[in-house]
Amino acid sequence: MSKPIDFYFDFSSPYGYFASTCLEELAAKYGRTVKWHPVLLGAIFKMTGAAPLSAVPLKGEYSLRDFERTARFYGIHYRKPSEFPLSTQAAARAMLWIRQHGGEEKAVAFCKAVYHAYFVDDLRIDRAEVLAQLAFDLDMDAARMIEGSNDPALKEQFKQDVDAAMKRGVFGSPFIIVDDEPFWGFDRFAQLEAFLKNGKI
Amino acid sequence: MSKPIDFYFDFSSPYGYFASTCLEELAAKYGRTVKWHPVLLGAIFKMTGAAPLSAVPLKGEYSLRDFERTARFYGIHYRKPSEFPLSTQAAARAMLWIRQHGGEEKAVAFCKAVYHAYFVDDLRIDRAEVLAQLAFDLDMDAARMIEGSNDPALKEQFKQDVDAAMKRGVFGSPFIIVDDEPFWGFDRFAQLEAFLKNGKI
Repeated sequence: MSKPIDFYFDFSSPYGYFASTCLEELAAKYGRTVKWHPVLLGAIFKMTGAAPLSAVPLKGEYSLRDFERTARFYGIHYRKPSEFPLSTQAAARAMLWIRQHGGEEKAVAFCKAVYHAYFVDDLRIDRAEVLAQLAFDLDMDAARMIEGSNDPALKEQFKQDVDAAMKRGVFGSPFIIVDDEPFWGFDRFAQLEAFLKNGKI
Repeated sequence: MSKPIDFYFDFSSPYGYFASTCLEELAAKYGRTVKWHPVLLGAIFKMTGAAPLSAVPLKGEYSLRDFERTARFYGIHYRKPSEFPLSTQAAARAMLWIRQHGGEEKAVAFCKAVYHAYFVDDLRIDRAEVLAQLAFDLDMDAARMIEGSNDPALKEQFKQDVDAAMKRGVFGSPFIIVDDEPFWGFDRFAQLEAFLKNGKI
């Protein structure tokens, strides 16, 4: 039995969202499953000294254009959020709480719902009421989720998850690791597929 | 008659080198030519606040791996230079001198020779004697080239070229502009081809 593919992403990353729309299908083609790992680019960038794409002169403007063009190129539904980027700490913790209390499948469904809410419906996924609605739609107890995702133990666990990701070399989103082979960026999906197919490049 | 494709690159950029091996063929497929513009990432990064890829924690190590993997994936001959990155000011100015005194064709041949010298033969393309040899191989007067590329007027012209590139939004290498549509990165070649084919994406 092959190990799952590790998929690291930040909920405010457009390329992470693009990856989320097709990674499971790609993995399944080669008999693999996907393990979803929300991370915080803010925390990671503090360590690497990087800045959010859209905050860099020239690169920022280009990136906004590239998000839309890449979405069109791959036929992915995408709308630039009014507020971008925004804090994804609450969404990530909510996802971990749902994994603990509703299981893996609901946690993955929640990830997709958060991405859709942000990049298609332009909802403020940094707000508790938005996350609560998405949890409620998955038959989770929204009030308990909001309370539970502020639990110090869960916060600490999430911090450790992000640290563990950095220890594995994760510095961006999407970041995918297959059998210790790292792939950064939605634009590495062709190479990722070749690796899944042949076990090497 | 369609306008040429503008190809901006730094001589120490592996992805710029990869692009240089196939951009002309891609352009020709759609009846286009390529105008080659050496730029200095060092000067551009000063403005945007970016750092060379290989100097960023985590990203640096990943990038070195990605250069080699991407070269294998596309079947491009590539060897990591012993000294990386290095100053490309002299190579860029030499190219401009050759354009002025030997014409466009020799200037393009010189670009390819410099990239090959650096990323295949592991030669120090920041050294005058290496650039002189490459110019000599193209039947140019190497001694005059070395002298001429230190001419204040040529230096000033190159500075203006880099400024003009930044004014057009160039912030990395390779950076390609077709009919005002910008493409950053060798990994945007699929989108570049779609744009050349359909005039839009």
